[in-house]
Amino acid sequence: MSLNVKKIGVLTSGGDSPGMNAAIRAVVRTCAFHNIECAGVYRGYQGMIEGDFKEMGPRSVNNIINKGGTVLKSARSKEFMTEEGRKKAHANLVKNNIDALVVIGGNGSFTGALLFNKEFNFPVIGIPGTIDNDIFGTSFTLGYDTALNTVVEVIDKIRDTASSHNRLFFIEVMGRDAGHIALNAGIGAGAEEILIPEEDMGLDRLLDSLRKSKASGKSSSIVVIAEGDKIGKSAFELKDYVEENMPEYDVRVSILGHMQRGGSPSCFDRVLASRLGVKAVETLLEGKSNYMVGLIKDEITLTPLEQAVKGKTQVDKELIRVSDIVSI
Amino acid sequence: MSLNVKKIGVLTSGGDSPGMNAAIRAVVRTCAFHNIECAGVYRGYQGMIEGDFKEMGPRSVNNIINKGGTVLKSARSKEFMTEEGRKKAHANLVKNNIDALVVIGGNGSFTGALLFNKEFNFPVIGIPGTIDNDIFGTSFTLGYDTALNTVVEVIDKIRDTASSHNRLFFIEVMGRDAGHIALNAGIGAGAEEILIPEEDMGLDRLLDSLRKSKASGKSSSIVVIAEGDKIGKSAFELKDYVEENMPEYDVRVSILGHMQRGGSPSCFDRVLASRLGVKAVETLLEGKSNYMVGLIKDEITLTPLEQAVKGKTQVDKELIRVSDIVSI
Amino acid sequence: MSLNVKKIGVLTSGGDSPGMNAAIRAVVRTCAFHNIECAGVYRGYQGMIEGDFKEMGPRSVNNIINKGGTVLKSARSKEFMTEEGRKKAHANLVKNNIDALVVIGGNGSFTGALLFNKEFNFPVIGIPGTIDNDIFGTSFTLGYDTALNTVVEVIDKIRDTASSHNRLFFIEVMGRDAGHIALNAGIGAGAEEILIPEEDMGLDRLLDSLRKSKASGKSSSIVVIAEGDKIGKSAFELKDYVEENMPEYDVRVSILGHMQRGGSPSCFDRVLASRLGVKAVETLLEGKSNYMVGLIKDEITLTPLEQAVKGKTQVDKELIRVSDIVSI
Amino acid sequence: MSLNVKKIGVLTSGGDSPGMNAAIRAVVRTCAFHNIECAGVYRGYQGMIEGDFKEMGPRSVNNIINKGGTVLKSARSKEFMTEEGRKKAHANLVKNNIDALVVIGGNGSFTGALLFNKEFNFPVIGIPGTIDNDIFGTSFTLGYDTALNTVVEVIDKIRDTASSHNRLFFIEVMGRDAGHIALNAGIGAGAEEILIPEEDMGLDRLLDSLRKSKASGKSSSIVVIAEGDKIGKSAFELKDYVEENMPEYDVRVSILGHMQRGGSPSCFDRVLASRLGVKAVETLLEGKSNYMVGLIKDEITLTPLEQAVKGKTQVDKELIRVSDIVSI
Repeated sequence: MSLNVKKIGVLTSGGDSPGMNAAIRAVVRTCAFHNIECAGVYRGYQGMIEGDFKEMGPRSVNNIINKGGTVLKSARSKEFMTEEGRKKAHANLVKNNIDALVVIGGNGSFTGALLFNKEFNFPVIGIPGTIDNDIFGTSFTLGYDTALNTVVEVIDKIRDTASSHNRLFFIEVMGRDAGHIALNAGIGAGAEEILIPEEDMGLDRLLDSLRKSKASGKSSSIVVIAEGDKIGKSAFELKDYVEENMPEYDVRVSILGHMQRGGSPSCFDRVLASRLGVKAVETLLEGKSNYMVGLIKDEITLTPLEQAVKGKTQVDKELIRVSDIVSI
Repeated sequence: MSLNVKKIGVLTSGGDSPGMNAAIRAVVRTCAFHNIECAGVYRGYQGMIEGDFKEMGPRSVNNIINKGGTVLKSARSKEFMTEEGRKKAHANLVKNNIDALVVIGGNGSFTGALLFNKEFNFPVIGIPGTIDNDIFGTSFTLGYDTALNTVVEVIDKIRDTASSHNRLFFIEVMGRDAGHIALNAGIGAGAEEILIPEEDMGLDRLLDSLRKSKASGKSSSIVVIAEGDKIGKSAFELKDYVEENMPEYDVRVSILGHMQRGGSPSCFDRVLASRLGVKAVETLLEGKSNYMVGLIKDEITLTPLEQAVKGKTQVDKELIRVSDIVSI
Repeated sequence: MSLNVKKIGVLTSGGDSPGMNAAIRAVVRTCAFHNIECAGVYRGYQGMIEGDFKEMGPRSVNNIINKGGTVLKSARSKEFMTEEGRKKAHANLVKNNIDALVVIGGNGSFTGALLFNKEFNFPVIGIPGTIDNDIFGTSFTLGYDTALNTVVEVIDKIRDTASSHNRLFFIEVMGRDAGHIALNAGIGAGAEEILIPEEDMGLDRLLDSLRKSKASGKSSSIVVIAEGDKIGKSAFELKDYVEENMPEYDVRVSILGHMQRGGSPSCFDRVLASRLGVKAVETLLEGKSNYMVGLIKDEITLTPLEQAVKGKTQVDKELIRVSDIVSI
Repeated sequence: MSLNVKKIGVLTSGGDSPGMNAAIRAVVRTCAFHNIECAGVYRGYQGMIEGDFKEMGPRSVNNIINKGGTVLKSARSKEFMTEEGRKKAHANLVKNNIDALVVIGGNGSFTGALLFNKEFNFPVIGIPGTIDNDIFGTSFTLGYDTALNTVVEVIDKIRDTASSHNRLFFIEVMGRDAGHIALNAGIGAGAEEILIPEEDMGLDRLLDSLRKSKASGKSSSIVVIAEGDKIGKSAFELKDYVEENMPEYDVRVSILGHMQRGGSPSCFDRVLASRLGVKAVETLLEGKSNYMVGLIKDEITLTPLEQAVKGKTQVDKELIRVSDIVSI
């Protein structure tokens, strides 16, 4: 164990996701377990610049494991993109005797952490927290599993009304660059079609698929669309297009939006957060830096932060095939 | 008990709502209890015109009490608005020996039922099924309580992310003409402001309220807006207006949409549906017609259908005051 | 408005129930709205004796409306049953300038409040908070609606497995003296039989009912039993009895227990809590005392605390009939 | 693709688990996708013996992906343990032109499948369906993830009331031989201690741990106990023991029981079921037999059924350590 790390700072940055609180709790308690100090940094890098810190002990994180959002709050910080901002931040850490940092967030947050490390040789470890599951170096990001359940539960409700009225629903879910949520929640919700950024299905194939769906005797249909799907039309534009070409359909649109980021984390996300939090602190205590902790092939792993930031995740192509089969 | 009613038809019409299946189950089983027959009519009045009937016994409605939507499906029928359509419908009822009708739906469905009764002297009873709670003659419509819980659970999730980022959210809920959902779910979700069709709050008061809210130290804010609110601006237009006038706010919009109609009914809606279903059948068996069953002041009641259709419900003004106080 | 009340104390006492936090929030904010002070008393009467008070303003109760349990904690206090204990409690109130009390709890808590009022002429108002719905002077106690939903959701899950295996389940729910939960959740969950403290069904009728149920073609059965049911046998004894007499049944028992007290409150309970909290404070400000606020026949009401404590609620006999009909 | 398999039978056997319906749906639709027939076998091996089959096409499995339990029902069959019973079963398969079998269940079901294969050289593939996660050859069994969420949600509710009263709760969860549920749900629910069959914690360490927990300032405690925990005392006996040795604790017990098997499957279980169902059918079509499909290290795999039956899963020892750290 490193003799150097005596006090660790922890912050959440970027979009919040369920499980962040469970990760904060794990970081704080692992510090206590190893008899080192811990400070919470409020509002991400902005709070670091403003010196918005709070000493945290095991009892500071009571009863937060099941809460959505982040008790440390999150914010985007333009000031941290400037050298001056980062200098202020570093001075604050030094002043508070913080000698290592756990950053819970996504790619943007990790890029900031890397820069900070480079400039001040400050030890940093990243924990992947985002519902989008689009971070290289982990099979599951914190919050992703919860978001899938949220989406599936909502579509279950919409299907009640869809099948009562023989309707077609276009449902837009999060995922500007990644189709993980759309693909998995689409399969889970029994969607007839799934449109994702990674594949250009084309409008013709969509119409074709809807026609087959109707011909096969289905009385209602759900199409799940990722925000950034390749067809490049919004859910509302798709609705117009389909209604023009298939006037027999009564099409409705639902944009799920921000509810996907909230909610009490699933057991999976809570356990994952606990494991990653423990690993993050213990990695710092081993004197390592610039890694992201993750879960790959059922094991807790370390991936160099630089790789995590540059790498690109891919949707599992097998899942596209599975979706085509089970939606027959 | 009337000697005349030997077979009752039951249908769901208009927008579906949670609890409709529980009501169908109660109607079917009350018929069995009183040793009369029951037929389900599919797709509302349209199915009546097309003769889409199915004999139903107690076991036909197993395991549906907890399902959203309606197993009898629902549809809007233009043909039923014509005399010819209604004649066909009546002929089908006669051919199937159905001599009374339970209609589960909203105002439009009841208007059709009244007309049908007038033309053919056919016994009809209405059960109020809609999430909007906008039917005169009952304090609670079927599905309303479930919809309130759905809305509140979703806003709870959005608040997780709102308070993690110190944001202002405009959340649009159902209610084109009635603010019941917005007002009750708004209070339940701890909304800072609630905009409803019944009251013109005015843009100035909204801004004023948001300013006070900020000044009071609130870190995030939720404004709940009924579809048909009096200010007459969409949630997106309101967002623009507020951001222009209060640039310190990062405003987000969420339109909850159709998910509000679905979901497994709450216990309240299931019990209400059971009570109304029993009462509907027994009222027909007593030889009565043209009533809507309802729940007023904790008691099951009968209201003449004509009154139910014409009457106007009002939001409880006390609730507006309560909302102003508890959102301080 | 009374000139006398300048500071109100609020406490929760007895078993906790969902909606207590929403009521605390409403009490605290109504005080702020009327520009008077408010103090939270921790751990009920025990905390009053120990002087465990905390000043509360509108921001002290942020984000608690959706939380189960009670942030003020609850406890049973033997010391408060002694005159000496109550004198200490009164002295603490006086020392803290608290000149009126809102007590959120059940019958035992109200009895204590009445005694306290009699001895010290101290203004008290009660808010009925218990999942059992067994308090005279209100149609709904805080937490009851939430508990019904909790029970129904759990039985829905058990029915999944019951109907997959053609089993008979005995499910014990809370209600030592009152069958409200059993009766309403039983109907809501589609129970075949419901055993409550208010009616002695008798073992023979139970067997008879189960035989009919089997004969009618039902593949699985759920019997809901209130803790204090009149047959006077535990769920496990009933299981033995039924298996002896109907060996064709594979009987399982489930005791739902404490989970029924917890959980995020339903919208109904949150709105009710808000209304009751506002009314409690404003009643004190009008110079009144010794009342319980409640909801009767859709209206917020005042019932003399003495009556609330002595009165006995009754289950709605109509519901027993409804249950018999819809479980056919 | 094998020319031999023209019709596949699918059955569920043993205890039911969430996701079984999603797996049935996937099996049925994959058959349709590959233009072969599919028959559902009701009530497991017993229905096979009784010839209780039903032809299934893609529309037979509409709207079941989100349902708990199994639409094919499950049963234990003593007759299938006899050679005569299995002969009858085989004759029925032959008579119905079924030439391969997908068995969804646990170890007992797979043992039966192996025997059946050996005797009649009948192609079989297993899909691991049980909430206990105790099957060798897959990191996740169907229903396990859902059960974890169910347990965690219930304990969240119990914690509401535990922390309102400063109580100690012993909560017994499923797992006679395996501590997977207890360990993961215990971490997810923030349990102070977790007792599992795999480790003998000893009564002294339990008391010690509870004393530390109290000393550390925790106001309430949750201990999660697997049915088959090594200490060998029931939750009620543990309660007595602790209350005797630590009279300051007010201990309550909750046995979660059968609700853990039910409920709408999580997205994870639905996707897993879909993938395993596709793989099971396609493996048969490739002419293979006697495998169990599973998910290991993020990939769909085949494990010889014989190994699956004999192998023993182990709880992840790292998780025990994580639990000790994060419950500090």
